[in-house]
Order: sequence, then structure tokens, then C-alpha cells
Amino acid sequence: MSAPRSILVVGSVALDSIRTPYGEVSEALGGSASYFSLSASHFAPVSIVAVVGQDFPQEYRRLFASCRVDLAGLESASGRTFRWRGEYRAELGHAHTLETQLNVFAEFHPRLEAAHRQAPYVFLANIDPDLQLEVLGQIRRPQLTLSDTMNYWIARKPDRVFEVLRRVDVALLNEEEARALSGETHLAKAAERLLEQGANAVIIKKGEHGAIYHSREERFITPAYPVTALTDPTGAGDSFAGGFLGLLARFDRADGHALRQAMACGTAMASLAIEAFSPRRLAETSADEIEGRVRALHGMVHYDLAPMFR
Amino acid sequence: MSAPRSILVVGSVALDSIRTPYGEVSEALGGSASYFSLSASHFAPVSIVAVVGQDFPQEYRRLFASCRVDLAGLESASGRTFRWRGEYRAELGHAHTLETQLNVFAEFHPRLEAAHRQAPYVFLANIDPDLQLEVLGQIRRPQLTLSDTMNYWIARKPDRVFEVLRRVDVALLNEEEARALSGETHLAKAAERLLEQGANAVIIKKGEHGAIYHSREERFITPAYPVTALTDPTGAGDSFAGGFLGLLARFDRADGHALRQAMACGTAMASLAIEAFSPRRLAETSADEIEGRVRALHGMVHYDLAPMFR
Repeated sequence: MSAPRSILVVGSVALDSIRTPYGEVSEALGGSASYFSLSASHFAPVSIVAVVGQDFPQEYRRLFASCRVDLAGLESASGRTFRWRGEYRAELGHAHTLETQLNVFAEFHPRLEAAHRQAPYVFLANIDPDLQLEVLGQIRRPQLTLSDTMNYWIARKPDRVFEVLRRVDVALLNEEEARALSGETHLAKAAERLLEQGANAVIIKKGEHGAIYHSREERFITPAYPVTALTDPTGAGDSFAGGFLGLLARFDRADGHALRQAMACGTAMASLAIEAFSPRRLAETSADEIEGRVRALHGMVHYDLAPMFR
Repeated sequence: MSAPRSILVVGSVALDSIRTPYGEVSEALGGSASYFSLSASHFAPVSIVAVVGQDFPQEYRRLFASCRVDLAGLESASGRTFRWRGEYRAELGHAHTLETQLNVFAEFHPRLEAAHRQAPYVFLANIDPDLQLEVLGQIRRPQLTLSDTMNYWIARKPDRVFEVLRRVDVALLNEEEARALSGETHLAKAAERLLEQGANAVIIKKGEHGAIYHSREERFITPAYPVTALTDPTGAGDSFAGGFLGLLARFDRADGHALRQAMACGTAMASLAIEAFSPRRLAETSADEIEGRVRALHGMVHYDLAPMFR
């Protein structure tokens, strides 16, 4: 096996204050780049490009370092770190945002240093699609690019979101985003429509109902891993992205076989992330636990196909 | 391979008037026993025990006969056939009942003739749990029994619904029914709770999100087959039941391997049923089309498990 290739993630590093029916945390480590990198780092080396304020706690830097996440691209700007305060009620499906303070994130313009421009695997987390395009323009010759977005950008800059979709290899969307962007309510139709509109491949995340991968060549469905200790859904999508891109970077492959394994790894990492507040479980888990969860998921979906009518 | 074993279904044969965003039908063939038997008949011989009125159209009898469904147990009572009128709006997830006329079904008390008491495979479709228990008491030595229910009975006769769950080998429930009966909102927990309460195995149907099978020995998840020609969701659950029990009866096996294949067959049959009004697609489909759909579904969930961290 060749050595794992490196991954670059551009996104947010934040301080989250979250309440769910299972507890609450205040100013805990959050942000798309945090969840992604602590997930992907189990598979391949990861570098973060993001910005924090002067108040960003040293202990979180140590946490990243202990997970071998490269922070050379983590800019430290004067001002306060991006903060998000949210709440999940009964069914946990939907976050209610109570407060967003962009702070130093408002002026973020990612400028990649030379080493990062060589990154073979790139995740453009949920940021302004104009910034995603700026980043793409700085990457020299990526092997595989993955993007995320959110309804906020689809409502405000649909053309730019589409431009990102056409430029990246795989675009991650949740159900509502896929419906809003395609104009189709039925998810199988929504995926087909997005491909017609120029996307190369899409992954539609359905939360507790799993995820589907759809390209012109491949169509793959995975259920979610059935978690009984659900604590905080924050970061599930970015953790999925970390397992997905992590597996591809580890094997430096993106054929159908690798993509399917990658979907399973993403599913396993998302299931771990939501068992605790903040990306704590992602930082603490082990190769054995991850592989065990992927094996258990495989056992729940696998069957041999016997001839039925002969 | 041994010859397929026979299946007995006790349920409703009805005349449905249905409107969906894709069209409407008036007094079309409907009812749980109709969908089930036209689905299962592709796998094994099926006998219906049900009641219709004097007005039941001869053409529907011919349809059953042409699919080799045995109607010896289809009682013809004086009065009108059971009628249901319903509507599906935008998202198609939920039927709005506009009118229910029980008619001859109100006085239905299934009395099984000698041949039917020997049935090795039995489906107790959604009828009063007291009737389901009456039927079970008449079956001599079944190989495998499968039940369905609905929220109406869970609200009115929860103890009897539980009694059915404890007596049958596998109980089918949809998401809301599983939540209502178990008192757990999280589906993985709901399934575990139902097993603790005495169920032997449960299948929780999640509509467009697939189905899970849960027993003490086996846990299996299948996504739905992604249908793009969705027309009328009526009968999806009974068609699933037909493919599921049909496969088990065909091979006369209920080990883990057979159960997983059966879940795939149920999924394929449900996907066919909802592509047209009434059970028309079920009557018209072929062994090749069914096997093709099972193979396509398998192709969408299958992956080889490679070691990840070595």
C-alpha cells in the first residue's frame, strides 16, 4: 500500500455553546474544520486553513496537535474567535441557532502557503462559495476535491454554489439543500437533476437515514449507523466528510470500490461524533473502534445474492 | 431446491378511490390481502382469506386467478364490499383518509377451511388484533407467521396488539407504530424495547428510507429502492410483506441469509407497487424484472470490506 496522501481543509474553527436534551456545553471547540480534521486525521495527515481570534484557547491547539493535525495554516487574527450558540429540541433533527458571532471569521480570506497549494485532497467546508472558489483557484493540481454548503448560501448565491458544484469532484448536500438547489422534492430525482446541472458527483446526507452517493457511473446507498447514545448532532456532516475523504486519501484511490468504503467510513465517523458534545469522541477514538464500527455497519447491510427464480 | 411452500394471508380485499399528485382512480382493486397476494404470488402459491360483497367485480377475481392466487377462502357476503377513499398531498408520505365504508368487512370473522389450517407460512394483515389471534388459533403448525398492524389498533387495543407480537415470529410496524407501541422515539431503541416486551423479531418500515429487521440474533438494514416514478404509495407495506414472506416460503428457510434476501425482495416488490395505482404493477411484473430490481438494490448497498488501518 502507498503512503496516505495529505488532506487540506478550509473552513471554520469556532467556539460552540450548545444545549441538547442530553446536556449542554459552553465555548467548546466547534466549527466545520475542527470536526472534519479530527475525523480525517485517523486516516491521513490533515492541514487546517482557518482563522481564530486572540482568545482561542491553547488547550484546543494542543488537542489538534495531539491528533497530528497541522495548524500552520491556522491564522491568528486580532479580535475574537467565531462563536455559535444553538439548541436542539426533542427530535434532534434540526439545530435552532440562538446566536452567531462571526468575529474574526467575517474578514477571512484564505491565502494558502506554498505547501498547502500542493494538497492532493481538499475539503471546502461550508463557507461563502466565493471563498471556496478562491481556494480552488489556489490549489495546483488536486487529486480529489470535496465541497459542502448550506441553505444560507443557496438562498443568497445560487449561481456561485452551482459554480462550486461544477468545479469540485464531489459535492456534499443535506436533504433540504439538495431539494432547494435542484427544485426537486424527491431525492433520487434531485440527485439526477444536480448531475444534469453540471455536478460531477453528489452525496446527499439524510441524517439518521444515511446517505446516498450519486454520479454518472456510481450509485450507492448507506444507512446511518444506529447510534443509541445520541448526544449532540453538531458536526455530523463534517465528521462524515472527514471519514469519506480520509479513506480516499489513505488509499489514494477514488474508484467505485474505494468510494463505497469511504461512505462507510464517513458513516462510522459521524456516528462517533454525535455520541458526545464537541469533537471529543473523534479525538479519543481508535483505529480499532473505527474499524469495528465499519465492520458492524457492513454486517448490517451485507447479504449474498442468491438466484431467486431458478 | 425444495418446492415453494404455500402462504395464507388473512386481510382485506377492498375497492379504493385514491387521488395523488399524479392522478386518481375510482373503485380500483385495493386492500391489504390484494397487495400482499399479488406480490407474494411471484414467489410461492398464495391463498386469500377475506370477505367481499355481492358487488365485487368479476374482473378482479379474474386478475387474482390469472396470478394463480387461490380464492377458495374469499367469502362472498350479502352487502357491499369494503371501500376506502383517500388522498395523498405534496410529499406523499401520509394518506389522508376521506371516507371508510367497512360494509361486509364489519362482520368479518375468518373461519379457515381444513386445507388453510395446514398453511406453513401465514400473513396476518392489518385487521383487529382479536381477529388475528382467532386466525392464529386455527393454524395447526405454522412454519413462520408474520403480522401487520396500525395505529388505530395500538390506540384501542394495545394489550391485544402486544399479544399478537408475542405470538408471531415477525411483526411488521411502520415508524409511528413502533414509536407508539414502544414509547421510544429513537427507532433503534424502539426495536430493542419491543424485543424486551416479548416480540420475537420486528421489521420497522421507514417508507422512502427503507426498513430495519431486528431480532435477538440478527440486525439488518435495507434502504428503499430509489423509485423515480412514484405514483401511489398505497399498499407499499403489504407489497413489502408479500416479497418478504414470499422469498422465505419459496426457499422454506428463515435463517439470517434467507431473512436478508427476503428484506431485499420485500423492498423490490414495494418499489414496484408504488409505481402505479392499485396493485397493477405487481400483477404485470415478471420474475426477470423482480430479480433485476433485487440485483440493482444489492449493487447499490454492496461493498467489499478491505482492512483499513493495516
